[in-house]
Amino acid sequence: MSGLRRAAARAWGPPRALRAFSARPRDRIVETVGKLLQTKAQLETEEGKKNFILKTPKGTQDFSPKQMAIREKVFSTIINCFKRHGAEVIDTPVFELTETLTGKYGEDSKLIYDLKDQGGKEELGCFCMSGPAQARMYLQNHSSPSPLCSRKNRAYEGMVNDRRILSGVFAACGVPESKLQAACSTVDKLNKMTWEDVKNEMVGEKGLTPEAADLIGEYVKLHGGLDLVEQLLQDPRLSHNKLAGEGLRDMKLLFEYLMLFGIVDKISFDLSLARGLNYYTGVIYEAVLIQQQNDRVEELVDVGSVAGGGRYDGLVGMFDSKRQKVPCVGVSIGIERIFSIVNCKVKASKEKIRTTETQVLVAAPQKHFLAARLKLISELWDAGIKAEMLYRENPKLLKQLHYCEDTGIPLAAIIGEQELKDGVVKLRDVATRQEVDIPRQKLLEEIRRRLES
Amino acid sequence: MSGLRRAAARAWGPPRALRAFSARPRDRIVETVGKLLQTKAQLETEEGKKNFILKTPKGTQDFSPKQMAIREKVFSTIINCFKRHGAEVIDTPVFELTETLTGKYGEDSKLIYDLKDQGGKEELGCFCMSGPAQARMYLQNHSSPSPLCSRKNRAYEGMVNDRRILSGVFAACGVPESKLQAACSTVDKLNKMTWEDVKNEMVGEKGLTPEAADLIGEYVKLHGGLDLVEQLLQDPRLSHNKLAGEGLRDMKLLFEYLMLFGIVDKISFDLSLARGLNYYTGVIYEAVLIQQQNDRVEELVDVGSVAGGGRYDGLVGMFDSKRQKVPCVGVSIGIERIFSIVNCKVKASKEKIRTTETQVLVAAPQKHFLAARLKLISELWDAGIKAEMLYRENPKLLKQLHYCEDTGIPLAAIIGEQELKDGVVKLRDVATRQEVDIPRQKLLEEIRRRLES
Repeated sequence: MSGLRRAAARAWGPPRALRAFSARPRDRIVETVGKLLQTKAQLETEEGKKNFILKTPKGTQDFSPKQMAIREKVFSTIINCFKRHGAEVIDTPVFELTETLTGKYGEDSKLIYDLKDQGGKEELGCFCMSGPAQARMYLQNHSSPSPLCSRKNRAYEGMVNDRRILSGVFAACGVPESKLQAACSTVDKLNKMTWEDVKNEMVGEKGLTPEAADLIGEYVKLHGGLDLVEQLLQDPRLSHNKLAGEGLRDMKLLFEYLMLFGIVDKISFDLSLARGLNYYTGVIYEAVLIQQQNDRVEELVDVGSVAGGGRYDGLVGMFDSKRQKVPCVGVSIGIERIFSIVNCKVKASKEKIRTTETQVLVAAPQKHFLAARLKLISELWDAGIKAEMLYRENPKLLKQLHYCEDTGIPLAAIIGEQELKDGVVKLRDVATRQEVDIPRQKLLEEIRRRLES
Repeated sequence: MSGLRRAAARAWGPPRALRAFSARPRDRIVETVGKLLQTKAQLETEEGKKNFILKTPKGTQDFSPKQMAIREKVFSTIINCFKRHGAEVIDTPVFELTETLTGKYGEDSKLIYDLKDQGGKEELGCFCMSGPAQARMYLQNHSSPSPLCSRKNRAYEGMVNDRRILSGVFAACGVPESKLQAACSTVDKLNKMTWEDVKNEMVGEKGLTPEAADLIGEYVKLHGGLDLVEQLLQDPRLSHNKLAGEGLRDMKLLFEYLMLFGIVDKISFDLSLARGLNYYTGVIYEAVLIQQQNDRVEELVDVGSVAGGGRYDGLVGMFDSKRQKVPCVGVSIGIERIFSIVNCKVKASKEKIRTTETQVLVAAPQKHFLAARLKLISELWDAGIKAEMLYRENPKLLKQLHYCEDTGIPLAAIIGEQELKDGVVKLRDVATRQEVDIPRQKLLEEIRRRLES
């Protein structure tokens, strides 16, 4: 059970809505459609027309074929990365019982989208994180967790830190245990606030001494690699702190692995990385989009952290009366942010996005060839070739060829009087406009050969 | 805009929940996790332990890696079928404004899952059908719809009918316009009820005369192919009915196309097929799983209709003040029913389901080879090969080989003292247990060759 798997599951998981709502009897559909017809009647009144505005619910949106093509590309890149590393997939419902999320005595939270089930018996909530759902599923099923390893995409760099190192630093700087979490969430704001503001918050709001804050400032400004780890292992203030020692020794091991993976230059050990959630128990990390030369992305969208996560060995135990410790490591991917960036890139590059995967357009140069086209396209479909044809009875050849160019179909299989007589199909390469007659029985083979090359 | 596309979108659509809820600030996460910690404290009390039962919300479930592997296979079969026919993908939110579904003056329906948004300003609903969402998206975006063509899977057969033929039959049998829809939904029960019960309902509840009901009975018992279409085109009762004539002429055309597609023997023109929804305006169809010889599926699960749909040219107009007619044809797939069937099949066959796509396990026969394994697996990952290794420091070789057998990994790349000295990797075929030393620089090539064959 791991956030990595969760992210993968989310990425190509099946439609949860379908799953949850697909079992309802048709009678109810009939009933509801009756109401839709009622609506129709109401819309026909003048007042109805004036007041009815079509829109999606707040916070949601529709996706066009072009947007979906981009999303699918991004998802498949992520999914393939997970699969390359041996990931399994799980899926949990889109909502959880509120008591799983906040506890039955807990208050509502703004983070949780409230839902009422039909019977009004269960409190439901949608949660923007996957950890609690996975913890529940794990405990319900006793499936054994296996660790997973994630790698950074070339376009991104990573920052790592360790909760224990941060705790050790705070303790070494004189922060009492009771103020540790508060101090931690203030440090987490360093990417948005100046050090002065962070210090003011620590001293003013969180009640740290100015001396402790200054000392913390010395540490959280540090970032580097294995050398920094070694330096801190020698630091007299930290050497007596058990947690910091454990964290630093694990960080050293991590950097040894990063070297073996050949990605040590992409990862920065950064003591300002805190991440707000106090359920982390060890390593924490974020993937950050860095400014690239000759790339207009930075001008277009506000980027930064695009993924983050860490180790949270205590989460499962929170839901378990035996409080067993279960090793968990996870990552959440800021998928909407990545989509925005890719969208901007696509717009800036004026790259043409295909919204279908069609390989062949079946076309005819003369009238009355609908039957011939249907027969040919059926042969292609049966052979597993992705094919389309224009559904009009007698489309103009030029219109058919333009359709190929507009939608990016690479090949056209043209069948007309002469071709039918000669037992051939004219195969056209849409890009080069070259046409060759291919014997009908060799057509599938020739199409496959061209698609492979 | 079409239900076919919708089904495809649903199938590999991205996580709607993530989309809807991913933009919330981290502060709220911190706040909520605070509450989770509160829950933790409460769970530590005796009463908390007693009362806290982990479960998923009513009507939802978790999916294990094995279930997800099966689901992914089913989804990819469906998606590939859509892609082969040139489908585009769209996605609409998991919920719609209730007014889009029932109209702002409509009552609640049991079909609609009520939701309240956080601000309490919008009424939200989850609807178990995709038509209204697509109609709304179409009208909001003015994108041009294009028709799509669907084909039946080999395992299934199809029934077709046409709303206009059914209307014509009812009219010809003396059913007044006002009772047409009621009579239609009664006929729709013919697959669950005997003709006698259907007749009783028509006469008793729906107010048809016994004579009309008997006459309808003559027609709705009919099923066949092109011959039946021809016969009805000559039927003196139907020949004067405009709607029936249109429907029958289109049905004839459909059967001509089915012949060209080579699937005419898989489709039955069935006059009892009514489908409850009165938004259909033309052809209606259902895919039915038929009993197969030597196949224990039928004994295991209750099957029947697994997909259905039709033409609904009036739906977009319902939401549009100009009432424009937009050609729409769609199909809904009973995905949960298909999963049940496939699940039973898998269980009965004792077929081993892989939950990962891992191609190579990187293994070592001796201790202290963690670094060598990490370096080798990194090379495989960088080359796009799906690879795993056991994450323990010094796993036994036998354990590593058993892992391959248990999880279905076809190849093991073994690196030990001798191999390191000789500059080779021992490549093991897990099925045949044959091992060959491959020079390190030829390893990727050899792995790719073996995976392709």
